[in-house]
This record gives sequence, structure tokens and C-alpha cells, in this order.
Amino acid sequence: MNGDHYPTDVMQKLVALCKRRGFVFQSSDIYGGLKSAYDYGPLGVELKRNIMNAWWATMVNGRDDVVGIDAAIIMKPDVWRASGHAAGFADPLVDCLVSKERFRADKAPRPAVGENLVLQVGDGNRAIAYGEQIAQRFGVSLQRQGNDLHGLYVADAQKVGCRHDADFSYPYRGYVSPCIGSPFLSDERQFNLMFRTALGAVDPMQDVAEVISSLTEADDLEAAVRERFARQAQEGPLADALASGQRQRIMRAVIELVTGPAMCYLRPETAQAMFVQFRNVLDATGLKPPFGIAQMGKSFRNEITVEHFIFRSCEFEQMEMEFFCPPGSQGEWMTYWKQERMTWWQRFANHPDDFRLRQHEADELAHYADECYDVEYYYPWGWDELEGIASRTDHDLHQHEEHAGVKLRYTDPDTVDPQTGKKPWSYRPFVIEPAAGATRAVLVYLLDAYHEETRTDAKGNPVVRTVLKLHPRLAPISCAVLPLVSNKEPFVVAARELHEALLAAGLRSRCDTKGAIGKRYAKHDEIGTPLCLTIDGQSLEDGTVTIRDRDSTDQDRIAIADAVAEVKRRIAGKS
Amino acid sequence: MNGDHYPTDVMQKLVALCKRRGFVFQSSDIYGGLKSAYDYGPLGVELKRNIMNAWWATMVNGRDDVVGIDAAIIMKPDVWRASGHAAGFADPLVDCLVSKERFRADKAPRPAVGENLVLQVGDGNRAIAYGEQIAQRFGVSLQRQGNDLHGLYVADAQKVGCRHDADFSYPYRGYVSPCIGSPFLSDERQFNLMFRTALGAVDPMQDVAEVISSLTEADDLEAAVRERFARQAQEGPLADALASGQRQRIMRAVIELVTGPAMCYLRPETAQAMFVQFRNVLDATGLKPPFGIAQMGKSFRNEITVEHFIFRSCEFEQMEMEFFCPPGSQGEWMTYWKQERMTWWQRFANHPDDFRLRQHEADELAHYADECYDVEYYYPWGWDELEGIASRTDHDLHQHEEHAGVKLRYTDPDTVDPQTGKKPWSYRPFVIEPAAGATRAVLVYLLDAYHEETRTDAKGNPVVRTVLKLHPRLAPISCAVLPLVSNKEPFVVAARELHEALLAAGLRSRCDTKGAIGKRYAKHDEIGTPLCLTIDGQSLEDGTVTIRDRDSTDQDRIAIADAVAEVKRRIAGKS
Repeated sequence: MNGDHYPTDVMQKLVALCKRRGFVFQSSDIYGGLKSAYDYGPLGVELKRNIMNAWWATMVNGRDDVVGIDAAIIMKPDVWRASGHAAGFADPLVDCLVSKERFRADKAPRPAVGENLVLQVGDGNRAIAYGEQIAQRFGVSLQRQGNDLHGLYVADAQKVGCRHDADFSYPYRGYVSPCIGSPFLSDERQFNLMFRTALGAVDPMQDVAEVISSLTEADDLEAAVRERFARQAQEGPLADALASGQRQRIMRAVIELVTGPAMCYLRPETAQAMFVQFRNVLDATGLKPPFGIAQMGKSFRNEITVEHFIFRSCEFEQMEMEFFCPPGSQGEWMTYWKQERMTWWQRFANHPDDFRLRQHEADELAHYADECYDVEYYYPWGWDELEGIASRTDHDLHQHEEHAGVKLRYTDPDTVDPQTGKKPWSYRPFVIEPAAGATRAVLVYLLDAYHEETRTDAKGNPVVRTVLKLHPRLAPISCAVLPLVSNKEPFVVAARELHEALLAAGLRSRCDTKGAIGKRYAKHDEIGTPLCLTIDGQSLEDGTVTIRDRDSTDQDRIAIADAVAEVKRRIAGKS
Repeated sequence: MNGDHYPTDVMQKLVALCKRRGFVFQSSDIYGGLKSAYDYGPLGVELKRNIMNAWWATMVNGRDDVVGIDAAIIMKPDVWRASGHAAGFADPLVDCLVSKERFRADKAPRPAVGENLVLQVGDGNRAIAYGEQIAQRFGVSLQRQGNDLHGLYVADAQKVGCRHDADFSYPYRGYVSPCIGSPFLSDERQFNLMFRTALGAVDPMQDVAEVISSLTEADDLEAAVRERFARQAQEGPLADALASGQRQRIMRAVIELVTGPAMCYLRPETAQAMFVQFRNVLDATGLKPPFGIAQMGKSFRNEITVEHFIFRSCEFEQMEMEFFCPPGSQGEWMTYWKQERMTWWQRFANHPDDFRLRQHEADELAHYADECYDVEYYYPWGWDELEGIASRTDHDLHQHEEHAGVKLRYTDPDTVDPQTGKKPWSYRPFVIEPAAGATRAVLVYLLDAYHEETRTDAKGNPVVRTVLKLHPRLAPISCAVLPLVSNKEPFVVAARELHEALLAAGLRSRCDTKGAIGKRYAKHDEIGTPLCLTIDGQSLEDGTVTIRDRDSTDQDRIAIADAVAEVKRRIAGKS
């Protein structure tokens, strides 16, 4: 069964281990932490590097048909208008005026006409407080039963009424707040998932302050706006705002005009740079479709809901590739890439069955996509996304062609154009996009590796051993060298010597000299070090060393002279 | 002589090569480019990765006393208030009202009392236009002589006068615009080099619009501000703004209050995360000073002047390490690290003399620093910065202790506190910080490698050969395999076979099948590939291959069976 290997409370245990051992810390920790951003500690940075380097080795350096790029995080707004992010990322958000919860209007419960609206507060004392607040602010006394407030119902499509107060009426928005089910709501507010910033030498808020202070000095603010922004008042958002007569909308439009020229976005995905640089890469490399452009790096989304530790955070890392192929061949390349990607994920896993491919239903597909698969992983909360593999047609290149006014095509002199029946064939390539989360990959391989087993100690008592069964290629440390006695010089000297030899052979070795040997083994089990080599009394006599396997805890004695080769052999054996 | 190896116009040539061959592209290129941000192309990303991986291998994985971290780019404002960036990064900026140039007030020329102020426009027609503008706007007719406008002088510390118009007077700011030398200037505006963004579910500009529109509905705007922000109007920036009576300052303070809670900065340096996570790293690793915490990654500065290609850009990459050592030992560690870092830079260079250490003069040192060296490189514009190695005392940990209210100390149970004469010694470690620019490193090694030589072709005509003499460890491609005849199957098959063997041995091999062989050699010279292996007619007969050295262009014939070992041997020989 999927997930059988998870001990109870695996997420809590993993988060605690990550902090205790230095995999993942809360960002800005000593200042109370920044919600939804994480810092990778000494072990986490190595694990993340190992995963991302393995991806790059497979997807770029190991192939002749894929090249890499590394584009800037700050990109022009034009890019995001063409990609649809500037529009599509805008979600309507609403505040519950009672509980102060903020939520997405389009995802809220929508009680039908005639239904009772019971406010389920979940706490009797708080229900009393909310009841008083509602009476004072909205003029209706609700009846409390335990943790709930009763009386409201949906009177018609536009109106909330009260069963015991015929005079009461409140506008109905068509939905209620998800947390307590209240119909008392703020206006909807537009929200963009992209982080905005300003590029340029002057603080745009200073410009806003200047413009607004001069506008407010006029007797008639609207007339002053029309005068100052004469052209923009003719059409577009400012014209619409002026027509509405709502001062707040007018102010919002003015702010947008003042801050617009310097405005930039932090990329919400790495993918768009591959389309924007398609022409430059083609010109520089002379590649011919089918070929891919790959990129790894940070992306930023102002997520409303951040959840499950590093699974969904506002700052995260991606590993994406756009594979450009001749129109008509996308089906065969989808088949190829979905197998390639599954194989890659399973290669480093203890539980390969916890990975699966799930095809998107027709109603999940974006309008331009003709096929999409998710690589899903069985997290402690169930199957969820790890990588998306989408057949994006020529949608993105087409959009950028139109917005930028440049041709983003490949001209194949040797192939007949199916339309004209003549050479050359000039076409916009179709795209298969395997887009993986690097931050999620860290979480997935930690979960896959997390293992608890109960053993019996020397006194016959049960003890829990925690082991991170990380693949040797991903483990932050490949091998640890431990002097059995930590404060005796000959042990330490011999250990350092062996450690230096392992380092020189390119192995990620650590020399760990302090604490009881049992504690050191337990630590290296917990951080996923596949092998421990221990210098003991016999080592000093006969030049041997014990080598301990993390997963079995078996120990063998080998010659120190053979240790480098043996470590390499054992690590390769697991790869 | 330093710089002797640069051909004329080396920067222009290098920038052109970078675009043509795919090292560096302008960011958001098809949308007109984003000033001051760059995208690394297929070759640039490999060069940058090779440099940064070499740094990580030397500074982190190769050492027992340094660990890495990878922290979030978005950090809390508290961090930057503690570090001084929130204050110290603010520079006063001014606009020249005539030329529209924007410049830093503290860096502008400061003519003394009595001096003539000649406006040097540099273009006769523009001088006429500027003269008319000045006459109209400021009421003084200046005399034009060629490209210059004459007549103004500094009358006294507060006043600009005109030699031929005794009635004219204009306030003197103490400085003039650097470009044309005009005293007609805008107000100074504060400017912060850090990029601001907002974290949270709602667009802060919407909040600004709401607050301002409701404030402007009141009859008395100041009274409305005092009412709405009653507490903040008592003291702090809003109180100061209200006291000044300047509406613009009041608006600015209001905007700050509204946007403040969600406000975050993109880090302007990677270093602060090492101080903020000092305690977590100490707890997780059990390390004891002296030890270091290292990080590589992107930083962002809203630079006024972006210059010299990727030398100074708004988005850039750093490689920084904070080395924490017991107070009193910082001098010896400075000596150690400045040598280590110089050795590292020179190790990959063709011209090691183009690197030097320069000690900061006393007046260059920050108030908390007790010593600082720059690793400088001889760029085409002269000696300039590449890495700073600063002895920062315990300044940063001290600042964060005070701002965060946590102890950032190490308690050494085995050492006597010099003050009390007793064990343990609890102290804030002192810090040596080698802080290198990764983006600059890319530029430096490209410049160091750029080489032109004139050869004679078969007809006796001189031809210029351009070679990038990149160190084999840094070169994007280690070896290229070329079938001499590109469209004949046996050549291509044999080439692919050898290429696969090289890839399997972990070498960065490329198989390059198209175009005349001379063009392919020229391309690989230009992109810095150290070795080319060519499959020719004889290869198919006797199983040999030619191996060509990039720098000497010498070719030798070797057995295909020995090729992997020979490539490894030659590359290692240059390391």
C-alpha cells in the first residue's frame, strides 16, 4: 500500500529533523520567521544541489539535443502580458468581515436560495463575541446554539434574510466565507500572484506621493486628474475609472499610471525565458528541432495558501525544460518524455510505486494544451503534484510572436511544407514541457527516505532508530570517518588521513571526531550518510578499518589501503 | 604590462562574441531588452556553473571547517534595518532640470564661490535649444559660444548670479549637474538601492488607493490623516511630516504606513543570511569557531549606474563566506584568507599578474571594519574590484543580537575568558568575509581568456584567429568530436560512438557534425573547447583519431581506444 512506510506524524517528525540536523530552517528565523520562505541549512543545501545537479546531468550535459540557459529573475511586464500571467494570475479575494479570514471568491461555498446560513464558529465563547459584533455592526441578533449562530438564510439571489427578524435584509453576494460561513463580506479585490517590484533609480512611492499631493491640492480632484492625465483619460483603465465616478478606482488607476513605467515582475515560472530566448539560442547554437532548452532556478508566487512545509511556498525552485519539435511529432515526444521523467524520479527512490503518472482530464487542460500528465507522488496527505509534463502546442511561441512582433520559427530547408508542398518548411515548433519542482523534489526524497525501525538495545529495551535512506548520489555526505576514541591523537590522526584520501578521490567525506560512537552512528543514520568508517584500536595495529552500512547497520573490516575503492564500489552499487 | 594581451576594442568584441556564440544575451531581449539584467545562454550557463562549482568545491566540500547554506532571496525588513542597508543604501538623487539627467547629489561637482558656471552642452544646436529653455523658464539669457553657454557664476554660498544681468539671482545648491554643469536642479529625492516588493495576499497599491481616496473625501486632509493614524501621528515619520506641513511628505508617510506591513526586500547581498542563521547552524552542526558559513546565489541592487556589460548589473550573483573566529585571531585569519583567495583566482588564469590584492586605506574602511583587502583585476578600463575580503569584527552579530533580542555567541567550555580569568569563554565571534562576485568572475575569466592572433592562411593571406583560452575546468565544453565529412554515415557513427564514451567517462563532450571542418575548429576555438577529436578517413581504416590542441592548434594522431584516457590526461595536465 502506498504510504505504508510513513510512521505516524511523519511530517512533524521530518520538519523537526530538518531543523535539528540543519536541512531546512525558517527564513529570517531570529526575527520571528518569514511565512512561506525557507532557508536550506548545511545538509539541505547539499541535498538540493545533488538533486539539481543530477537533473542537469541527465537533462542537459548528458544529451546532445538539450542546452541550458540561466535567465534573469526580473523580467519585463511585456513577457507576462504575452504569457497570460499578468491577467490569469489575478484572483478575486474577499475578507470575511466577522472572522477576518481572507479567501478566494471563486473557491467559496455558494449556498442556494432558501438555504439556512448557519455560522459555524467552532468555539462557544467566540460565537458569543461574534454574535455581539454582528448585532452591533449589522443590526441582527442571531441565536446561539453551542458553537453556532442561527437565523440567517438566503432569501433570494440578491438578499440574505433572518428567520426571526422579518425586517432584516443584507445583500447576498452568492457565496459565504469558507471558514465560518458568514455572508458579511468585504468587496472583492483583485490580486495578482506575481511579485511586483520597481526597476529604476527612484522610489516609485515618492512619485505617487508627489502626484497625489498635487492632485489633492486642486478643488476638483476629478478635473485635476483629467487635466494631468489628459491622454490616458480618453480610454483604458483610467477612462473606465473616471466613468464609474468611484474615487477609489480613479486613485488606483492613477497609481498604476505613475508606477507603471518602472514596474517589473519577479518571474512566477522559469519557462517563459526559454520562449523569449528561443531565437537567440537557435541563432547561437545552430540547433534544429527536435531540441530542448532547460533551466533551473528560483521562481516567486504570492500564494494565498502556503502549506505542507516546503511543498508550497512563495519562493521556490524549479527545473524546467521546453522541448521544441516539428508540429505533428508532439504525441511521440510526449510518450518519450513522460517515460524519461518517471524513470528519472524512480531511479533515486526507495519506494518507486509512490510515483505515478496521471493524465489530465479534458476539463483540466488549458485551452491551448493538447495533452498533459502529472508526475504525482504519494505524500502523507495523498497523491499530489511533483512535475507537470504538458504538450503546449505552439501557443507560447505564437503569443510572443504577436506581442513582440518577431518571428519565432524554424526554417527547415530540407523538408517539404505540408501546406505548400514545397521546400522549405518554416514552422513554429510545438512544445513538450517537463516542468518539475526542485523544492518539492527535496521534500519528496526526504519523505521517501524517512524510515523508523524499532530495535532492541543491549539491555533488551526497544529503541527507535531513525534513518534517512537517501540514495548515495543524493546524500549530503557520502561517507563519514570516525575515530572510535575522540580525544586520543593517534585515532584522530589516522581518521583525518583517511578522510583526506576520500576527499581527494572526489567523495563527499566528513571527519567526525566528537561524542560517543553510538551517538555519531545515530546522527549519520539520521542525516542519511550511507557509510561510516571507524578507526579503532585494531586499526592502529593492523591498518584496517570497519565500514558500516547505514541501512543494514552491518559492519565489515577492510584494509585502510582499500577503503577509497571500497567506498566507491559500495556507493556505485546502489546507484 | 597589465592588459597588454587585450586586443583593441576587447569589450565590444567580447560582448559580440557572447551574443553570437550564446554566452550572454540581453534579458527580455525580444521586448527591447531589460537594461541591466542579463540571461546566460547555453555556453554562459555552463561557464558560470563551472566557476561556481569550483568555488563551492574549494570553499565548502573540500574543507571540514566550512558549511554551506542557501537562504531565501526575500528577507524581512528587520534584517536590513539591523544590517544598516535600509538606512545606508539611501542616496540623495537629483534631476538636472535642463538636461533631464538624474544623478547622485553627494557625487556631483561643487564649484566654489566666485567660479564661473559654464554649461558645456557638447552640441551647438542643443546649446541653442537649452539657452531658449533657460531664458523662458528661469528668466536669464545666456551667451552661447559654440557648444557652451556662458554668463552664470557662483555669487555666494546660497546664490547663482549672472555676469551680464545684475538683476538675476537663483538659489545655489552647492553643486551642479555632472553632465552639463547646470545649477538648475530639482529637489533632492531619497533613493534606496534595495528592491522592494510586497509579500501577502493583497495588492498593497489597492490599500493605498482605498486609504487615499477616503482621506481625500474629507474637507481637511491633514485632520483626516490625524484621525485615521492617530497613534502614528504622535511620533515618527508621519509626525515629522505633519509638523512640516508639506502635503507631499505627509502623503509619502501615509503610503509608507499603509504598505509597510507587507513590505519585503530582495536581498542586496547574500551575506546577512549567514549572520541571521548563525545560531541555527551552530546548533545543528556542533561546529566550533573557527568555522565558516558559505553561500552562493542571486542578489539585487537598484544601481543608478549600470556599466561595463555584466560587471555592474541590477541582478547579479555572489559567492560569499563568513568565517567566524575567536576575537583576537582575526588578523591571522585575514592573512590566511587573502592568500587562499588570491591563489584560487590565479589558479584558473592565463595572466595571473592581472590579479592583485589592494589594502583599503583607513578612510575607505567602514567604521566597524578593522582591515579590508580587495582582490582587483585589471579590466580593460583599469584595476577594479572582483572580491572584497573584510575583517568585520563582531559588528554584524552584535547588530542582529540587538535588533532580534537573541544571543549570537559561542560558549567555549575549555577556554578561559580573558576578562574574568575563568572558564567558560562566551563570546561573539569575529568575522573575516571573503565576498566574491560570481557574475564578475564570468567576465574576468572571459577577458583573461580572450585572445587574438594573426596567422597566415594557405594562400599566404593574414587571418585573425580568435581563441578563448579558458581553463579546461571552466570551459563549457571539454572536448568536441568531429566527423571530418559531415554527411557520410560511417564518419558520423564513429564520431557518435567516441562521443558517447567520453560522456560516459563524465567529460563534457559535444558531437558536432555540421559544416566545413575549418569552420568547426574556428567555432570551438572561439568558445574555448580545449580539445577537438576528428574522425577522418584513416580513422575508419586503422581505428585512430586526430586530437587537436586549442591553444597550439597542433594535431596528433592517437588510437580511438586510448582517446578517453588521453583527453583526461591532457585536461588534467592543464589543471
